[in-house]
Amino acid sequence: MSEFELIRRYFTRATPSALLGVGDDAALLQVSAGHVLAVSSDMLVCGTHFFADADPYLLGHKALAVNLSDMAAMGAAPRWATLAISLPRVNEAGVDEIWLERFSAGFFALAQLYGVELVGGDTTAGPLNLSVTIMGEVPQGVALQRNGAQLGDEIWISGTLGDAALALAHLQKRIILSETEFSACALALHQPQPRIALGLALRGMANSAIDISDGLLADLGHILDASNVGAHLDFSLLPTSAHLSAHLRSPLGKQCVLAGGDDYELCFTASADRHAELLLLSEQLDLPLTCVGTIVAQRGCVVQDAQGDLIHFEKGGYEHFR
Amino acid sequence: MSEFELIRRYFTRATPSALLGVGDDAALLQVSAGHVLAVSSDMLVCGTHFFADADPYLLGHKALAVNLSDMAAMGAAPRWATLAISLPRVNEAGVDEIWLERFSAGFFALAQLYGVELVGGDTTAGPLNLSVTIMGEVPQGVALQRNGAQLGDEIWISGTLGDAALALAHLQKRIILSETEFSACALALHQPQPRIALGLALRGMANSAIDISDGLLADLGHILDASNVGAHLDFSLLPTSAHLSAHLRSPLGKQCVLAGGDDYELCFTASADRHAELLLLSEQLDLPLTCVGTIVAQRGCVVQDAQGDLIHFEKGGYEHFR
Repeated sequence: MSEFELIRRYFTRATPSALLGVGDDAALLQVSAGHVLAVSSDMLVCGTHFFADADPYLLGHKALAVNLSDMAAMGAAPRWATLAISLPRVNEAGVDEIWLERFSAGFFALAQLYGVELVGGDTTAGPLNLSVTIMGEVPQGVALQRNGAQLGDEIWISGTLGDAALALAHLQKRIILSETEFSACALALHQPQPRIALGLALRGMANSAIDISDGLLADLGHILDASNVGAHLDFSLLPTSAHLSAHLRSPLGKQCVLAGGDDYELCFTASADRHAELLLLSEQLDLPLTCVGTIVAQRGCVVQDAQGDLIHFEKGGYEHFR
Repeated sequence: MSEFELIRRYFTRATPSALLGVGDDAALLQVSAGHVLAVSSDMLVCGTHFFADADPYLLGHKALAVNLSDMAAMGAAPRWATLAISLPRVNEAGVDEIWLERFSAGFFALAQLYGVELVGGDTTAGPLNLSVTIMGEVPQGVALQRNGAQLGDEIWISGTLGDAALALAHLQKRIILSETEFSACALALHQPQPRIALGLALRGMANSAIDISDGLLADLGHILDASNVGAHLDFSLLPTSAHLSAHLRSPLGKQCVLAGGDDYELCFTASADRHAELLLLSEQLDLPLTCVGTIVAQRGCVVQDAQGDLIHFEKGGYEHFR
């Protein structure tokens, strides 16, 4: 199969909202009047972000989901994506078509759910690498940024934290989970759900936002740095699944919650005036939104347990080159 | 060095034209009124597109140049880019900072030349892979597409063809060049010059355009397919350097010109009425523009030599999975 046939078969779907989609030197896109373009790129690498035998359907989902999560964190409505993919040649015949079929199905299933159109990209031979650029729109002046946290803001988290990291710890044999526990946590690791509806609802409501990809402490840390403030977190308030709660006393459990990474939940700050409104939003979206702390003047992030004792961590989050 | 320090040091430069640049979940960009966004992604993979010992400065140049070339082929003015890069860990200390310093210098030197701002991306550990998404602007309705070639259009080529492929053939020991020959041809391979000024000038003048990345026959073939027409090419008119001309009688020389790839020149078609105007443009830009053939109704691409004999080729251009 030629590269062009491969693109036609697996990566070309209708792009009604694009002026020009896949198949020219570039796609042509019309950004809606009064809106700005939000753009983000994320790369998933075999051996770094996933195992070589990962289910290609889930990989297709995740490659797009982690990018959609960035749109959610900006309060942007996702519109278009490009996918650059490097694929191993499996034999003389070319690429693994069964793998491609499943990957593409996972990618497009999620794309369709959020009305995202694949408008371009690149397909090349090489070690498995998935590089997605996502583009979305946000009305001028309402994007959620990291630098807007205000003194006294409440700190909120969507969903629950740590399940993905717990599933990874099991796969890495750092802990042994029961089959039930693992299945539940693996869902978080392999099929993260981007919080698009939440991001859109937080426009004009949140003062700052970020998606939790490297772990809560690391990502909240970016808000604190950008906003030049600090935070008090109450560890006992951090939202966790029943599966993770059972491990909360262990250092590994605590690490999964605070610094696990791969959560793809939103962490955002909002004025305390918004508290009731946010609880209502949580009901409307059928998504837990939990207030876990406060923005303070003193730089740094202090985490206290239910007894008021400080919890210390050496490693703030996942970093590639440490 | 942490991932964030690395991004700060090597991949963060001022982005005055972006509403928000590197350092949030997404960049925020304002597309100019009356313009549409042109977007393209290209991935360069170590072992597929370049050798592991490639000069990182030239690699930084090329990773951006091949993307800029897509903007040129659309008649778009390049504005912004994202760079997702996967880098091997070289040792306990992390990444090769000398490599990064040079790569980043090459990338930004070219970016500055064309006023392109790096507004985001991703940095991760893994086999060396460079994935750039380029974004540009083009006034509504004037983008150069592949599907606009008209019967009777003249076919034009910018610059010269085949030098890059000849340099690669030397590196692959399929031919032995003198040191002088190789240095000249290597420049085309390692430091292609995107034809941005030409692309902008061709708005409203060319009926179709493409950049030659996979070889003339393959890329002109895309214009022919998209426009549902055919072409007659006169082999003796194809523009080549003096170095390449010396090899034109050999099958390898012919292959370099017709199907070599990595040229990053523009191939475009325009009404014969525009002939004099295009020759004038060639002078103004100080860039050879050569008329090499004609668009005809009969599908396919016929290449004739000076004697009128047909030249046949089995392989139309570079393809990754054949």
